[in-house]
Amino acid sequence: MAHKSDIEIAREAKKRPIQEIGARLGIGSDDLLPYGHDKAKVSQTFIDSVQDRPNGKLILVTAINPTPAGEGKTTTTVGLGDGLNRIGKNAAICIREASLGPNFGMKGGAAGGGYAQVVPMEEMNLHFTGDFHAITSAHNLLSAMIDNHIYWGNELEIDQRRVVWRRVLDMNDRALRDVVTSLGGVANGFPRQAGFDITVASEVMAILCLAKNLADLEKRLGDMIVAYRRDRSPVYCRDIKADGAMTVLLKDAMQPNLVQTLENNPAFVHGGPFANIAHGCNSVTATTTALKLADYVVTEAGFGADLGAEKFMNIKCRKAGLAPDAVVLVATCRAMKMNGGVTKDDLGREDVDAIRKGCANLGRHISNVKSFGVPVVVAINHFVTDTDAEVEAVKDYVARQGAEAILCKHWAHGSAGIEDLAHKVVQLAESGAANFAPLYPDEMGLFDKIDTIARRIYHADAAIADKSVRDQLHAWEQQGYGHLPICMAKTQYSFSTDANLRGAPTGHTVPVREVRLSAGAGFVVVICGEIMTMPGLPRQPSAENIRLNDAGEIEGLF
Amino acid sequence: MAHKSDIEIAREAKKRPIQEIGARLGIGSDDLLPYGHDKAKVSQTFIDSVQDRPNGKLILVTAINPTPAGEGKTTTTVGLGDGLNRIGKNAAICIREASLGPNFGMKGGAAGGGYAQVVPMEEMNLHFTGDFHAITSAHNLLSAMIDNHIYWGNELEIDQRRVVWRRVLDMNDRALRDVVTSLGGVANGFPRQAGFDITVASEVMAILCLAKNLADLEKRLGDMIVAYRRDRSPVYCRDIKADGAMTVLLKDAMQPNLVQTLENNPAFVHGGPFANIAHGCNSVTATTTALKLADYVVTEAGFGADLGAEKFMNIKCRKAGLAPDAVVLVATCRAMKMNGGVTKDDLGREDVDAIRKGCANLGRHISNVKSFGVPVVVAINHFVTDTDAEVEAVKDYVARQGAEAILCKHWAHGSAGIEDLAHKVVQLAESGAANFAPLYPDEMGLFDKIDTIARRIYHADAAIADKSVRDQLHAWEQQGYGHLPICMAKTQYSFSTDANLRGAPTGHTVPVREVRLSAGAGFVVVICGEIMTMPGLPRQPSAENIRLNDAGEIEGLF
Repeated sequence: MAHKSDIEIAREAKKRPIQEIGARLGIGSDDLLPYGHDKAKVSQTFIDSVQDRPNGKLILVTAINPTPAGEGKTTTTVGLGDGLNRIGKNAAICIREASLGPNFGMKGGAAGGGYAQVVPMEEMNLHFTGDFHAITSAHNLLSAMIDNHIYWGNELEIDQRRVVWRRVLDMNDRALRDVVTSLGGVANGFPRQAGFDITVASEVMAILCLAKNLADLEKRLGDMIVAYRRDRSPVYCRDIKADGAMTVLLKDAMQPNLVQTLENNPAFVHGGPFANIAHGCNSVTATTTALKLADYVVTEAGFGADLGAEKFMNIKCRKAGLAPDAVVLVATCRAMKMNGGVTKDDLGREDVDAIRKGCANLGRHISNVKSFGVPVVVAINHFVTDTDAEVEAVKDYVARQGAEAILCKHWAHGSAGIEDLAHKVVQLAESGAANFAPLYPDEMGLFDKIDTIARRIYHADAAIADKSVRDQLHAWEQQGYGHLPICMAKTQYSFSTDANLRGAPTGHTVPVREVRLSAGAGFVVVICGEIMTMPGLPRQPSAENIRLNDAGEIEGLF
Repeated sequence: MAHKSDIEIAREAKKRPIQEIGARLGIGSDDLLPYGHDKAKVSQTFIDSVQDRPNGKLILVTAINPTPAGEGKTTTTVGLGDGLNRIGKNAAICIREASLGPNFGMKGGAAGGGYAQVVPMEEMNLHFTGDFHAITSAHNLLSAMIDNHIYWGNELEIDQRRVVWRRVLDMNDRALRDVVTSLGGVANGFPRQAGFDITVASEVMAILCLAKNLADLEKRLGDMIVAYRRDRSPVYCRDIKADGAMTVLLKDAMQPNLVQTLENNPAFVHGGPFANIAHGCNSVTATTTALKLADYVVTEAGFGADLGAEKFMNIKCRKAGLAPDAVVLVATCRAMKMNGGVTKDDLGREDVDAIRKGCANLGRHISNVKSFGVPVVVAINHFVTDTDAEVEAVKDYVARQGAEAILCKHWAHGSAGIEDLAHKVVQLAESGAANFAPLYPDEMGLFDKIDTIARRIYHADAAIADKSVRDQLHAWEQQGYGHLPICMAKTQYSFSTDANLRGAPTGHTVPVREVRLSAGAGFVVVICGEIMTMPGLPRQPSAENIRLNDAGEIEGLF
């Protein structure tokens, strides 16, 4: 096995022209809008033309609660896509786009790893096809129009203290979290408290990822609440008349991006909403388009299955009319060991007992996924330090849960290392075993939905909330928002709201600190803990070492 | 003549695939990085490969002082390019990219007009190939890194009151002109006064447009002054270690964009610096690349010749080693009438006397251009309301100045309407009459350079400045910046600093209010009057009417 870095492997990729990748899916070159020679958008015209086709099988890749050891969810998504193609299936993957800003703080995230990657890796971590820039523009146009409305007389009677629409930048910039704007005198407007989030936290991002088409996008943008009046009645984006222009700014961004894996298989990379205050999945348009073009579509959701899969099922699938045919739950021996109490420095040492102990986390995710009526298989993403005894311990545990765990070596061997999983996924998806249903019905009360997630997914005793929070939820129910699903924002490191509680905790409660209405995206965000929507840069930002070398290659980004 | 709007004409364009346009210039499809089917970037590799070729002829299109009547400088640039191709020459045009933000305030600017336009018009007024978004990202990365540096201990001892590097957005947003950042407590840094400009006002934009290549870009970015210490010593971008990462963010943006005219002739559209606090020309890389690929390159500069041509000559040509072979000075009968005192409402009525009076403005521009040693021809951009007597009055006047004025009907007839001008331009450019020299030598003192521009170009009695301004200029000379050219920022409507003084005023002085050092771009900005670097939106922003119609077309943008 080669000991090359991800970027070295990515740079050696023998990429095919993107038109060839499109042709594999039946997309003619007229319907592929190229961005360079290795990236393209799929035209809306083409997407419209395939709506009557049957859907392929939808496979969700999710994971145990993340640990610093890393699980390799995206790597497994890419590997499985390649594996399915290797065993003769027509498969595509759907993953999220990366946010530009954070790459200048810590080193950039690859799209996958080892021999299971999507390329072009560098462009995907920089401007890519400009989608996030378009979201930034659309978001900030609305911001400017709100202040402009107030400036010119405030006909809508916006309470300037209750403008909830902030601004965004795709940059880690803590100085912009809390600002006072419109200083400097009469010509600059009315000073007020304001602030910036990072672009991926924008409700526009969540909407772009949930909208079925441009008409739906425009409607959802119009539905967004941007401010309140003194009487607490909401002011909508539609009232500001920004929805049409925002849609124009987003019309190209709405078209899914097509790139390729190292093995030249098709990969849709589109959208990237936060996995805490939003639902953390790639776009509905990418997934539904891929399902029309491929027999198998492998996709992933952010964080562990308690957040990612839950939101994928209860928000994305519910709203887009999707139903997964199988779920792959990614685990690693290293992560099991950490869940079993081993510290990061000791991960290199065999510790079967710790694995057995840590498997409780995995077991709970297995039963949770099953509760959605979807068959599940565990992928053990192999690390070179894993011992046979450790792998067997995981397999044994999973077998006792009524599922199967399959060792996967796609990181080291690409599709050749993941054939067994591919065959198993095909078997599960074709078995007809899936009988998907969301966890709760639309009609359930908002707090009951939260409580249901807390009990059924987090295995907590209950969700708890102050009267003010409950009153707010009731008010939204009165205003017609009671049918919305819940978008939980809590730590991804634990089933509980305490990041240090690994494994499969019980006896905990889920305290709700705050609730927010994303009326355009169509969910109620339930915040349990600190949520950071504008990151800062570290003491030594990676940007200090990023540069072009004499060969014109980017150094320091990865 | 059809009475179609610019956008109707643009939508009827029979565009050729951009690869065909590239092939006309000898650019292979591997060296064209497509953005959709009608836009492409020219690869740096290709640009490097043509450096040893001889240059074509460089033609500058400039104009009289602008009036609300409109002169049609870009329209004439496009028309002349088409006209040169029509008469059998291999010609390309080079124009600037449009800023996105202002389109949501007032209706968007087309690239040209009538039958002399560049397409795709809508994309060019929206995200285009993402260059401006890249500049926004690069600029704001530096901003974030400055505040981050201060946050983590301020090793460079930046005086927080003297951070001169602001932030940018490509949006008209007056609320961001003056802000206080880093509020909200310890985790968000040290509160300080800050602000945002529009992206085109960024020094990064000016640098992108003046840099010869990526290495030069990185050096210039490093040279930018971002703050001062208490002892007034400058802190450079290089000290913040942002120059490398900014270069990475700008590496695609540095490659010139290729599109086409309505007549399928090549058009480079690249860069768009402000014409007041910056030099207002398209990029050096686009112009120098075009000169290697075409026998004639037609380009333009912002505002009238007093600002645009002067900066083109003294900043762009000087720094890039370019020398124009001929200048086309655009005038209209309508603008001559306004210069002669006619109000906008009365422009439809014949008024030969007013034209004769207004021609003084044109005459001064003619002699100014000649003073650079470059032959000049006047293009009368025809309006349907122009009478023969009016056109003859302009022609007579110009003839008396020792030049020729040629009536051009490219707006109505495309290249067929501008053949005479094309022939004349060829004759001038091939005559060898050009003997270009900048107005002042590098070695001249900074204030003397300002005074020289004031006297020789504005025909003022003198430039005047407070002691503080003169002291600042002296200080920069001591610090080694004395060799820099001057970038004047004054009203574009008059030779003087009073916008209402039309025609060819004399007896005025040029009061310098403020000077700023753009150490990376490489010029000293001299501000005479109010300069707005962050526009606001009007009471009824055009954004309110911009939307996609049922046919998927953009309404309200034009």
